[in-house]
Amino acid sequence: MLYAQIHLTLPAWVHEGIDAARPYPRDADKVALAIELSRRNIDAGSGGPFGAAVFGPDDRILSIGVNRVMPHACSLAHAETMAYMLAQQRTQRVRLNLDEEGRPVGPITLATSSQPCCQCYGATVWAGIDRLLIGARSEDVESLTDFDEGPLPLDWVGALEARGIVVARDIHRDAARDVLRRYGELDGPTY
Amino acid sequence: MLYAQIHLTLPAWVHEGIDAARPYPRDADKVALAIELSRRNIDAGSGGPFGAAVFGPDDRILSIGVNRVMPHACSLAHAETMAYMLAQQRTQRVRLNLDEEGRPVGPITLATSSQPCCQCYGATVWAGIDRLLIGARSEDVESLTDFDEGPLPLDWVGALEARGIVVARDIHRDAARDVLRRYGELDGPTY
Repeated sequence: MLYAQIHLTLPAWVHEGIDAARPYPRDADKVALAIELSRRNIDAGSGGPFGAAVFGPDDRILSIGVNRVMPHACSLAHAETMAYMLAQQRTQRVRLNLDEEGRPVGPITLATSSQPCCQCYGATVWAGIDRLLIGARSEDVESLTDFDEGPLPLDWVGALEARGIVVARDIHRDAARDVLRRYGELDGPTY
Repeated sequence: MLYAQIHLTLPAWVHEGIDAARPYPRDADKVALAIELSRRNIDAGSGGPFGAAVFGPDDRILSIGVNRVMPHACSLAHAETMAYMLAQQRTQRVRLNLDEEGRPVGPITLATSSQPCCQCYGATVWAGIDRLLIGARSEDVESLTDFDEGPLPLDWVGALEARGIVVARDIHRDAARDVLRRYGELDGPTY
């Protein structure tokens, strides 16, 4: 028999305590939400220490994502990929920043608690975002936990910027590192 | 309101005409199936010209995948990523080649009709495969269609092989190119 159905979910706690109606105007507000999601994910035991959110041109949430690799036995279910898929499903836009006729809809932003791994890096190339906001660096992830970030193009920032995706790093880096450090001390799974 | 559910499917035709019980012992048999899936996907209008399949240590199908980007408005729904997610869901193994205690289960193979793009490249690093079998090259995809393969590490083969993933290319390359060429002439969407 061939399996033909994939079903992925966010944990139930996302429906409590996140203000999905308010704007998150500053870059720091957006990354703070991503880090808060990463923290809540490990507190709830609902996945790894990673959170992300996609914001529309009005600075409001289009989607959020957290790592769901272990609960779903799915190596694709990273925070960034969950957020991309949920934003695309909500907007029914395969490129989040283009409408049905291929016209720009205004800047789309992904905020993530840690630098995207090799898989989320590639997903970021296709998702249709204009801005990528990052908390912790890869070296933070790899030094504070046993997670591996995987192989990237040497100039990974330049390759994104060549495609019109602006990258901003080290936003609330210390707060993002605190969550990673706490997860590293818990000795949880590192998929 | 926050979206929290993702549902992805293969087209209904996968349940007809694919022998999921027989072994596919040779590399060429495995890639031929991936190319056949790519061909059927464009004939049915159910997605882009890409197919893939995951095989277990007994050379039987663990899962198949085809490109479902446009039907699902989901840039993650590439052939390889669909195949990985479906094989992981079936086996409940987050690394396809490791059991619950982290012991190797025997070689796991992905066959794909075309070289993985940057996103599927990253997904391949985490999925837990031992062998990657490829039909058409990236330059075939980019010369015969308007699809873009995205930025990869300079030595992308070497980076996989350093992680224990053996790469074999140009298997039935001409047959894979034929499907790409036909899709290119159709002028279908290139997401």
